Amino acid sequence: MSERRAEGQRTLQSLQRPAIGVDIGGTKVAAGLVDTDGRVLQRARRETPHRSKSPQVVEDTIAEVISELRDYREAIAVGIGAAGFVDATQSSVLFAPHLSWRHEPLRDAMRRRVGLPVVVENDANAALWAEWRFGAAQGEDNVVCVNLGTGIGGGVLINGELYRGRYGVAGEFGHMQVVAGGHRCECGNRGCWEQYASGNALVREARELAAAGSPVAHNLLVRVDGGASRLTGPLDTDAAKDGDPAATELFEDIGRWLGIGLANLAAAFDPGLFVIGGGVSEAGELLLNPAREAFRRQLTGRGFRPEARIIRAQLGNEAGLIGAADLARDRARIFRRRRSRSGRL
Amino acid sequence: MSERRAEGQRTLQSLQRPAIGVDIGGTKVAAGLVDTDGRVLQRARRETPHRSKSPQVVEDTIAEVISELRDYREAIAVGIGAAGFVDATQSSVLFAPHLSWRHEPLRDAMRRRVGLPVVVENDANAALWAEWRFGAAQGEDNVVCVNLGTGIGGGVLINGELYRGRYGVAGEFGHMQVVAGGHRCECGNRGCWEQYASGNALVREARELAAAGSPVAHNLLVRVDGGASRLTGPLDTDAAKDGDPAATELFEDIGRWLGIGLANLAAAFDPGLFVIGGGVSEAGELLLNPAREAFRRQLTGRGFRPEARIIRAQLGNEAGLIGAADLARDRARIFRRRRSRSGRL
Repeated sequence: MSERRAEGQRTLQSLQRPAIGVDIGGTKVAAGLVDTDGRVLQRARRETPHRSKSPQVVEDTIAEVISELRDYREAIAVGIGAAGFVDATQSSVLFAPHLSWRHEPLRDAMRRRVGLPVVVENDANAALWAEWRFGAAQGEDNVVCVNLGTGIGGGVLINGELYRGRYGVAGEFGHMQVVAGGHRCECGNRGCWEQYASGNALVREARELAAAGSPVAHNLLVRVDGGASRLTGPLDTDAAKDGDPAATELFEDIGRWLGIGLANLAAAFDPGLFVIGGGVSEAGELLLNPAREAFRRQLTGRGFRPEARIIRAQLGNEAGLIGAADLARDRARIFRRRRSRSGRL
Repeated sequence: MSERRAEGQRTLQSLQRPAIGVDIGGTKVAAGLVDTDGRVLQRARRETPHRSKSPQVVEDTIAEVISELRDYREAIAVGIGAAGFVDATQSSVLFAPHLSWRHEPLRDAMRRRVGLPVVVENDANAALWAEWRFGAAQGEDNVVCVNLGTGIGGGVLINGELYRGRYGVAGEFGHMQVVAGGHRCECGNRGCWEQYASGNALVREARELAAAGSPVAHNLLVRVDGGASRLTGPLDTDAAKDGDPAATELFEDIGRWLGIGLANLAAAFDPGLFVIGGGVSEAGELLLNPAREAFRRQLTGRGFRPEARIIRAQLGNEAGLIGAADLARDRARIFRRRRSRSGRL
């Protein structure tokens, strides 16, 4: 075998290596070794350091999970998905609500520490990428994803490419005003969409309903021994799935607001598909049916335009790390191709 | 000179020919011969046929203005900008609120009638294109334009290309809900942005203010001999420019709603620049200053992100026809290049 061919084969083999995806959430750092088909071969987890800790401490935690996974098998590259503003060059996190990062040059810091190519991406973008490559959005190149967690994360795919905006911070749908003078939002404004269609909104409404002493909330309250403040999103979901009428109504309300916001996004982006992910989406059709109904009722130009489909995400809470890993692999591939073309294989 | 070279020169000469742009508005069909620098060399105008007239009648009108302009000088192609939904292939108008067009195959019908290449484009997209090529948006490739006329028209430029969405109908910003249960909109919904930041909103507010008999509206009413129903947008603009306090306040209110909606669009699209056009923008800084103030106050992540600039469009009400002509020229150029490559010059 010629030296050149042998080199080519080594490159090919290394491109088959798994990539590491790291998803930095508000409470957990979840990481995984991801193969070329988007399967998670091995997992590692830590608690997210409290936001009072220095950026250094968060980097230590990321380095730890990466090292743990590399002990299992060597990786080609690392992708880091973070809930926050990632700059246009995808090297710095401008701002992350749950962390101490402010203009944090994460990519280069981690690259130095782990000696592998590193990609930094907004977590919702990473999740959308995963759904497009391996999940619910396969085959549709114009997609808007909406992830209903504590708040709302958003991502936009245009002609099969992630759309990041001029400065890297597009897709912050949760902070679009839908109610003038509405509920106060963490972002400092009022009436943001995520105050009406998110996990936080669900829990707030459930607790208000229970605290009002309404008889319709009786069965919900029984589930938490009468302690309205112990009502959570997953508990509401379970209750709705069991047919509890109050919990079902709560999802109808959240779903209606979801549909209204999606109609706004359809007016702006006109995608072929909406993919709904995040913890709240585990309620499935209990959420999506009222959302579709409100969407059809609210869509501007209804009757004169093709309408986007609204479906549930498929990859669950691992979508972020799978997408981050796949984006990192993609970048590594492009990088190697360039090196190989310039003769520096 | 070789035959091939002579042919090439003839092609080059024909590419220097002006293109015709036609802007079909609610009241006027405005057309112009536009040169390669975006200058309008000759104009033609008709009234827009009433929406009760058949599509055929509108096509007759378009054919008339085109023929009038070609008598002056031969053109390379025709671009038609229309207020309405243009389909993804840019051949049909799916729906136009002011016309009888429903799924109207305008491109092919006009091509047959005039024997020139024809391009159909949404009017706000055409205007944005003109501002990017020859006007206020030169040098910035990620632009959102918002045209405040009777309603709100919108366009999006991403990396120097018009973004049309999966089905061609992106950028309908005017129908994004900003006030739950707000003013009724022509689109059938309530609380649409264009009910708060458009020419219609300005006139409605002015008339309400005057009808309420408020002393602050006294000077405004003097301008229309006490007839509140005779208050118009241009009249409000003149009054505000003359320093009338009531008219100035009206523009502050409209401007504030403009800024809130722009903050919503910044959350979604994160552009580098907003270009504000349409009749209402003729108030200039009287509108844009309050808009910028509200935008800064409402932008999510303010302080942690670069902010888009907000400026006024430059090309006035000819932007639509200039852009439509330039897009038609572009298409003709690509088409000729392809023919020339395949040897069928």
